[in-house]
Amino acid sequence: MHSFWGQREGDLLRLDAEELAHAVKSLRVETGDVIQVFDGSGDVYVGRVSQVHKKYVLAQHLETLRDYGAVSGHLHIAIAPTKNVDRIHFFLEKAVEMGIHEISPLVAFHSERRHWNEERALRIMKAACTQSRKGRLPLLHSPRTVESLIKEDAAASLACMATCMDSPQESWVELVRKNPERPVLLMIGPEGDFSAEELALAQAAGFHHVHLGEHRLRTETAGLYAVAAFAQR
Amino acid sequence: MHSFWGQREGDLLRLDAEELAHAVKSLRVETGDVIQVFDGSGDVYVGRVSQVHKKYVLAQHLETLRDYGAVSGHLHIAIAPTKNVDRIHFFLEKAVEMGIHEISPLVAFHSERRHWNEERALRIMKAACTQSRKGRLPLLHSPRTVESLIKEDAAASLACMATCMDSPQESWVELVRKNPERPVLLMIGPEGDFSAEELALAQAAGFHHVHLGEHRLRTETAGLYAVAAFAQR
Repeated sequence: MHSFWGQREGDLLRLDAEELAHAVKSLRVETGDVIQVFDGSGDVYVGRVSQVHKKYVLAQHLETLRDYGAVSGHLHIAIAPTKNVDRIHFFLEKAVEMGIHEISPLVAFHSERRHWNEERALRIMKAACTQSRKGRLPLLHSPRTVESLIKEDAAASLACMATCMDSPQESWVELVRKNPERPVLLMIGPEGDFSAEELALAQAAGFHHVHLGEHRLRTETAGLYAVAAFAQR
Repeated sequence: MHSFWGQREGDLLRLDAEELAHAVKSLRVETGDVIQVFDGSGDVYVGRVSQVHKKYVLAQHLETLRDYGAVSGHLHIAIAPTKNVDRIHFFLEKAVEMGIHEISPLVAFHSERRHWNEERALRIMKAACTQSRKGRLPLLHSPRTVESLIKEDAAASLACMATCMDSPQESWVELVRKNPERPVLLMIGPEGDFSAEELALAQAAGFHHVHLGEHRLRTETAGLYAVAAFAQR
């Protein structure tokens, strides 16, 4: 069964404009086909195509799949976009496949990339949702500085900052396994790591200073490793 | 400290020819610099550069770091290369960073890619070793069919085949956690999954039929997820 992004309007399902060429020309969707429509809410709608036109595709709503492919818990990763944008895009796609819940692009002192194409990031995430059958589109924030993220999000969750610095660190994997019910925020820095000032600021705000095991991981690998660990906690 | 691939010859360390341009032109290595030399054996050699020439760079051996960055256990993943070669290259890089031990490119009934550039794969893996400080280069086999892999490797290890098929499956993560000391072989199929015949063949040879959790993962994501799970077992 093919899956598309769209909207439910009562008993009608309407594909998003950007899905039309793919649906009509590539996949040759026809009247009578049964399809799935994702709107990112968590629910997915099953419908039977009733009208195919180059400017719209409509389907009759048949069934709603509640909390489709939901992953328990709440993992929010705040991560510094990489200089090579393909790397952070790969992270986005894999993180959605493995069930992340919230993503914040992070602007840190050593950030190598400050430009961020939010539309492109969302397209990648939406494609990963339909590919991996996840009804809920993870929340994607606009880029934020380390300072503003610490101020806004520290209180809400099990807040952690991952660095390679030698000051006492806890194992993030163990911390998460010991607190399986708590929402988690994990900050992952750029290639040059967080600055000592950023770490001090986070620690003062109650962040746990964590490591991700005996590995020296690239930024995007650290992100993938953390999402996989959370999914297996 | 910069890291390069090379060879130890008694008290002398010699950089590989393909490292010279990078070392001399990009990083401007000079006489007296202390460098690390990787040969993939597991040990890493620290040396002081004694001669810089456009055709060779030599260093005096100072110290050997034994089993540098070794990850305990033995994980062998046999995985079908993806149609889009960037995806399997990304898997190779991340798998090395997270500590895989052995990789077999797999030719399955539904394989979308049968061509495999082994030299390019090795270059990616070697770069990931120096980047992530892993002294041992994981063993990379030439492509093998599912049949030959089953015949050659089933007896040696905790042998598993991951599929999306509905016949009784065990959780791979739980299986690995219950057997922390055993070498593990995990076969991951192409986008179209293994065929029913391939699954039957593996089961007849004693392979465990496993799943990787409630996820529908792309081939390369399944590989990454498994390496991360093994590193955290």
